[in-house]
Amino acid sequence: MAFFNHLSPRYNPVKRTIAYLFAAVLSLTAVAQQALWGFNETVSPDVAPDGTVTLRLKAPDASAVEVTGDFLPKREVDTPAGKALVRGIASMSRDSSGMWSFTSTPLAPELYQYWFVVDGVSTPDPSNVFKIRDTNTLTDVFMVGGGPDSLYAVANVPHGTVSKVWYPSSLPGGQRRMTVYTPAGYESGNDRYPVLYLLHGMGGDENAWSELGRATQILDNLIAAGKAEPMILVMPNGNPAMQGAPGETPLGFTQPTIRLPMTMDGSYEAAFPEIVAFVDSTYRTKAEKASRAVAGLSMGGFHSKNLSLQYPDLFDYIGLFSAAYEPRGGQDSEIFQNTDAKLDRQFAQAPELYYIAIGRDDFLYDLNKEWRRTLDSKGYPYVYIESEDGHIWKNWRNYLSDFLPRLFHGKQNK
Amino acid sequence: MAFFNHLSPRYNPVKRTIAYLFAAVLSLTAVAQQALWGFNETVSPDVAPDGTVTLRLKAPDASAVEVTGDFLPKREVDTPAGKALVRGIASMSRDSSGMWSFTSTPLAPELYQYWFVVDGVSTPDPSNVFKIRDTNTLTDVFMVGGGPDSLYAVANVPHGTVSKVWYPSSLPGGQRRMTVYTPAGYESGNDRYPVLYLLHGMGGDENAWSELGRATQILDNLIAAGKAEPMILVMPNGNPAMQGAPGETPLGFTQPTIRLPMTMDGSYEAAFPEIVAFVDSTYRTKAEKASRAVAGLSMGGFHSKNLSLQYPDLFDYIGLFSAAYEPRGGQDSEIFQNTDAKLDRQFAQAPELYYIAIGRDDFLYDLNKEWRRTLDSKGYPYVYIESEDGHIWKNWRNYLSDFLPRLFHGKQNK
Repeated sequence: MAFFNHLSPRYNPVKRTIAYLFAAVLSLTAVAQQALWGFNETVSPDVAPDGTVTLRLKAPDASAVEVTGDFLPKREVDTPAGKALVRGIASMSRDSSGMWSFTSTPLAPELYQYWFVVDGVSTPDPSNVFKIRDTNTLTDVFMVGGGPDSLYAVANVPHGTVSKVWYPSSLPGGQRRMTVYTPAGYESGNDRYPVLYLLHGMGGDENAWSELGRATQILDNLIAAGKAEPMILVMPNGNPAMQGAPGETPLGFTQPTIRLPMTMDGSYEAAFPEIVAFVDSTYRTKAEKASRAVAGLSMGGFHSKNLSLQYPDLFDYIGLFSAAYEPRGGQDSEIFQNTDAKLDRQFAQAPELYYIAIGRDDFLYDLNKEWRRTLDSKGYPYVYIESEDGHIWKNWRNYLSDFLPRLFHGKQNK
Repeated sequence: MAFFNHLSPRYNPVKRTIAYLFAAVLSLTAVAQQALWGFNETVSPDVAPDGTVTLRLKAPDASAVEVTGDFLPKREVDTPAGKALVRGIASMSRDSSGMWSFTSTPLAPELYQYWFVVDGVSTPDPSNVFKIRDTNTLTDVFMVGGGPDSLYAVANVPHGTVSKVWYPSSLPGGQRRMTVYTPAGYESGNDRYPVLYLLHGMGGDENAWSELGRATQILDNLIAAGKAEPMILVMPNGNPAMQGAPGETPLGFTQPTIRLPMTMDGSYEAAFPEIVAFVDSTYRTKAEKASRAVAGLSMGGFHSKNLSLQYPDLFDYIGLFSAAYEPRGGQDSEIFQNTDAKLDRQFAQAPELYYIAIGRDDFLYDLNKEWRRTLDSKGYPYVYIESEDGHIWKNWRNYLSDFLPRLFHGKQNK
């Protein structure tokens, strides 16, 4: 019986373990009301040394169980707007005990996302405690190897500190939340460090780059290998309608939605100097253009472009990863006025690195091409990276891994 | 079709929103392969102002859907060892669209945990992005109000910084992870602060007190109300077999299990001075007994008792929350020798506060009673709190909320 199964110590190995642990001191009758939940008896995901992953779900009464994930081959489907490549989906097989399973082909080192579809219902993997929220969706995750070049792994290297910090803001709410990475040695030393401001996409938040982005592991590993300068990473929240990530503000555990207001209307860029001022006054920074970078993905690329345009004295290193370009609202904002003259002004005191990266399948590909044409027409130099795939985290992690070693070494543009 | 439903922008409101957002710039055909997952269309949990919660699951093909959670009335069941009170379970009702739902009675302000059981299979709520891992289990959570006295809420008050910090250790792995809370004003000021070392239970980790324990919100709110001294909170990992929480170490995304080795064998207590030394050298602490407290739940209570016994000069404030007492292994450890003489030594330089809290239904109740008898027999004073319920987070959050205001104000024992 399911009811008995997950409540009784007798039939549940986890509960049995607990019962054993306390055997000398407890009467079994009381265990089940204690803070010992434990329903995780199935091994899923199960990553083998050859890079195959087996996913499992015990569901004896289900008629059909499928898995959808970014590790499955994409499929072409018809949509009202024509053919589209969509994330793959695979049937899982049932054994006689009611255990459904699926084993992949060997996968490249990467962080992957998936979920199950049980009789048509999207279902998180109940056996996997590792889930990451992106925007309004929680997906199950697993990692093959340590990701590309093992950069996503927590290696046995010195680790930076990752902090959740509130700063005073002129935006609604009066205080806002950011994630700050200080490199290993920061707390015990007196050195000053350069700063990368790393911005998330629309609907993301100050947790996005450190969770799905693996930014702190990537930077730990690059610094330890001598491939990136020790630096401070500042990951603010780029949505002025929110003080911080879902669950971390006075809104409490309100389920997140994609929010429209005020994310790309110039208000964030207008208020951004308060972030730089807070960081320069709170941390031991090198408070100068040559030691500041700004980069972001999608909406964060849009912000990075605008910030570097608006404040030409702030940042010498600029990264646009799958950047968006079109404002939404805020037509009257100072941020969007005289952009042509601002661009000339920016490149008159040319940044050391202006980095544009985009995937060939990205829906923002054409807008990025247009922006490159603008730069080309004026003869302004930049570094351009074109990758496979589209508007996905795999690309953004790769762009970051490629971008970080270029920072704070002087001129990078060709 | 389920397949089409969660992949097509046309039939999914979230995707439709995204499509609208980018309508000017994208061709719809490409959306579905981008990093826009989104399957969360059902509102669950849905907490009403009167404290009732409605939980929902769309599962048209399921035969029976139940919910189990700590907000349901406990039920008495027969077990091999006799009658037991177990966490409640309730049937959910199906409407004609295949939506299952359950509405609770009005609930007291609290943080609650639950999951669904679909045709006998334990299933996380796919609509709830707020899940917290405890030991080896991820449960869905929701909050009614801001918890007792609104202490669990993120209020519009100054917030401390919460950091994940690695420190050098003599234990296996060479470096270990801790969570550190520095109070609002720490970064911008020069004051020195007292420190509470707050320890988790068996199977827990350095994230437990800040996640299920709401320790940082409780302390933010108590400090803002003038009810607790501004202090640093140090939440180390108390399991020497692990360098840090699951997913945060070189083990990668290895699913956690309850681990037996070396958690209560004295090795942690023996190494503990390295934590105090690191904290005193890294943070602006008041490095003195009168400004140090140690407290913990279950195994953390065991550690707190042993630490205060072994190092009588370190801590003036000691909190045992649902404490365990029996070592497992380590019979030869110095930590467990001459404990009677050590207790006399400890109370010869009596701590300002020796605080014992336990629930009447806790399976460790009798051991706590025994320890109180030992203290009573020697005439050593302590504060004793006896609550309802057993070995659960609700009690530990309450004990912490009661304990914090007593710290660093001098003698508290009767």
